[in-house]
Amino acid sequence: MDTQKLIDYLDKNLERFKEELKFFIAIESVSADSRRALEIKKAAEFLEEQFNDFQFETKIYETEGHPIVYAQSMKAGEDKPTVLLYGHYDVQPEDPIDEWNSEPFELTEKDGRMFARGSADDKGQVFMHLKVIEAFVKEHGELPFNLKVIIEGEEEVGSESLETFLEEHKDMLKADFVLISDTAFVANNHPSISVGLRGINYFQIDLQTANSDLHSGQFGGAVANPAHILARILAKLHDEDNKVTIPEFYRDVLEADEETQKAMDELAKNPSHFLENEAKAFGLEGEKEFNHVEQIWVRPTCEVNGVLSGYAGEGAKTVLPAKAMAKVSMRLVPNQDPKHIEEQFTKYIKELCPDFVDLKVTCFQGGKPYLAPLDHPIYEKAKAALNSFWPDKEVMFTREGGSIPIVETFESKLGLFSLLMGFAHPDDNIHGPNENLELSHFTGGMKALVHFYSSIPE
Amino acid sequence: MDTQKLIDYLDKNLERFKEELKFFIAIESVSADSRRALEIKKAAEFLEEQFNDFQFETKIYETEGHPIVYAQSMKAGEDKPTVLLYGHYDVQPEDPIDEWNSEPFELTEKDGRMFARGSADDKGQVFMHLKVIEAFVKEHGELPFNLKVIIEGEEEVGSESLETFLEEHKDMLKADFVLISDTAFVANNHPSISVGLRGINYFQIDLQTANSDLHSGQFGGAVANPAHILARILAKLHDEDNKVTIPEFYRDVLEADEETQKAMDELAKNPSHFLENEAKAFGLEGEKEFNHVEQIWVRPTCEVNGVLSGYAGEGAKTVLPAKAMAKVSMRLVPNQDPKHIEEQFTKYIKELCPDFVDLKVTCFQGGKPYLAPLDHPIYEKAKAALNSFWPDKEVMFTREGGSIPIVETFESKLGLFSLLMGFAHPDDNIHGPNENLELSHFTGGMKALVHFYSSIPE
Repeated sequence: MDTQKLIDYLDKNLERFKEELKFFIAIESVSADSRRALEIKKAAEFLEEQFNDFQFETKIYETEGHPIVYAQSMKAGEDKPTVLLYGHYDVQPEDPIDEWNSEPFELTEKDGRMFARGSADDKGQVFMHLKVIEAFVKEHGELPFNLKVIIEGEEEVGSESLETFLEEHKDMLKADFVLISDTAFVANNHPSISVGLRGINYFQIDLQTANSDLHSGQFGGAVANPAHILARILAKLHDEDNKVTIPEFYRDVLEADEETQKAMDELAKNPSHFLENEAKAFGLEGEKEFNHVEQIWVRPTCEVNGVLSGYAGEGAKTVLPAKAMAKVSMRLVPNQDPKHIEEQFTKYIKELCPDFVDLKVTCFQGGKPYLAPLDHPIYEKAKAALNSFWPDKEVMFTREGGSIPIVETFESKLGLFSLLMGFAHPDDNIHGPNENLELSHFTGGMKALVHFYSSIPE
Repeated sequence: MDTQKLIDYLDKNLERFKEELKFFIAIESVSADSRRALEIKKAAEFLEEQFNDFQFETKIYETEGHPIVYAQSMKAGEDKPTVLLYGHYDVQPEDPIDEWNSEPFELTEKDGRMFARGSADDKGQVFMHLKVIEAFVKEHGELPFNLKVIIEGEEEVGSESLETFLEEHKDMLKADFVLISDTAFVANNHPSISVGLRGINYFQIDLQTANSDLHSGQFGGAVANPAHILARILAKLHDEDNKVTIPEFYRDVLEADEETQKAMDELAKNPSHFLENEAKAFGLEGEKEFNHVEQIWVRPTCEVNGVLSGYAGEGAKTVLPAKAMAKVSMRLVPNQDPKHIEEQFTKYIKELCPDFVDLKVTCFQGGKPYLAPLDHPIYEKAKAALNSFWPDKEVMFTREGGSIPIVETFESKLGLFSLLMGFAHPDDNIHGPNENLELSHFTGGMKALVHFYSSIPE
């Protein structure tokens, strides 16, 4: 197959691609924000139109949550492999808004990067596949393999509807493997393939200790303060060595294999580079006996994602709060079970909380961790494709600290292996302000995908 | 003096008074909210107009903060006493807005109470004096004593401009005593006079640990989480007996005198009534060896007034916060010194916080505690006046858990004694949602003030 022709197509149309991506990004498809249901719908419709243009069979499946876009092209024929491409069009909320240097939903190019919510996670990476598909369709009439595509709108809130969808459409979704671009290179312009993902549990803890906020003078000192109680609870979630104190939390944690251990030790040699250049943070506070790569690749966490109580506005308000809220999530590693951790956590919080408190512990999502079989033959093709654009670097097998809960479901429910071939990078700021995607990862990634797509039927 | 005529005037005009108060309340004079500067101005102008109507010499003093309304009527002559009436027209922020049962700035009568922000603290009580003055002026032409009035707009944010104002206008403010209605009865329809106020220190603690929020999967477990650090700090502010752990915090605390101790022990007999009917809260968590009245009257506190970190919106956002913020205030008792406590607290927080954190501790306000001399002759007149409307109850000397920092300044800077004759009540919800004032306290209070005003020159 003439890949050069395809790559020329990509080069020639790059400016138009950017305009189209700009349009896609401007749709504020924040799945956690119920006021943006219309934006979610618009994002799904944008994708539907794209696939219609490619002459795919396309359908938007309505769900109890956000719609799932499904598209397929089976023109390659039964003797060719079938790939199930997965991605998500929903994005994280854009706050804290005032820390963005450009408009969160306006794709802004600066210093060789494209800044916007969703540029890396995952609209930008989904869009890369769209344009590679377009190149094949426009230049060759069709793809060299059969392609089924699922792009969902609930990845950032737990993929609940997709779980059901997978179970209900097992036959329709039959494929040789799943292809996902929603992960990151180990370093900028150092390609890598993710072979492990952490699972996740996400909770909200709500404490109420009075009917309404009280005057801190009239009642302070006597009436219980839920912010104090919450602080005590949160402070107890880790011990002095930063070990998580939830009972049985580490019971099922799988030790790293030798090769992974070697890679982690190698990568952990420069923690200050990690801190200053990737995290842009001021201090490390992980489990004492593990290095920072181990802490992210193979160790589970318990992280406070948000806290709110009482008065958080400008100036002084002498209020004794009636309520306190915390969002707490765990990243889980093989072989931890989210259900087990949910039970242990809920029980533990109840134990830590005084009886008189009106306590509510809500679990928003639970996703299992994932570890891929490292001997799958597709890896050689993926590596070769990545090396076609980044020839000087050895493609590395990495673990992701993040979670794509559905990957484990693909395996357990559909028996499908997932290839995690993502193009983001360590300082992409996904989920935070100034999310961005390296332009070289965007353009190079599309070119690598052209090579990969071409090699699939071989 | 014919007090009956004055009381008839009050009765006759009650409906108009309510309409006027409704207008005053509707002015959203929230001093902590810089976007409401115009509302602050409107509130000051409302007061200016009132005093102009009463033929007082009136002037609005601009300050670096909010304007001070000053008015005086010296028509009674040099042989009559001079009273300095103090109050404030600013109010606390109205949030949490969704917990109000009526509009926060719309005076709403229900179940014998008037609900609105400022109904009790302090616009409603200031207004009571306005209408008593009006009754004297309309029915008698003038007051039987000389009256100077200061109504400020920064009481809820520390009275900083007033401090300066008092120092700069010592001569103008010469008086026999200060009269303040900004406190509460010990129980509904059980009149009392406050003889002690707690002082206050109000801080904001800001922690930053990264340039911006991070992905909790990519970085969680390794990079320090400011919400964890803040929780640890806040959890350490009290020990297991709920004693405040700030070094030297209790060093200067004055023990209660015998009479106060007796009153506290008597009042503390029914903690569940206090909890259920006054606080409408679910649990007590005060210093272990003290009862709840002691905890509020004579013991200092350290109270978290607000916390914010990371994502506090709807649903799940898997973010590792870059910042965490807490508002923490102390109520101080005689003879604690706010400056000393400020130094100790700031030092202590720095000790509790890891060095790598970008930490800021801001002190918004400091107000000294106050204890009145109990033998002042004015108390007898005040008691008699209160008993004129509430004849069956013995007027009680109480301490306030709250703070009116300027009271101590009146004493130390102007040598003036303050009579704290307030008409709110324990379940008035000031500073919280559904602030309210008992209608019987409003009408009865004005009538008691007619008696009190009449008795001043005797």
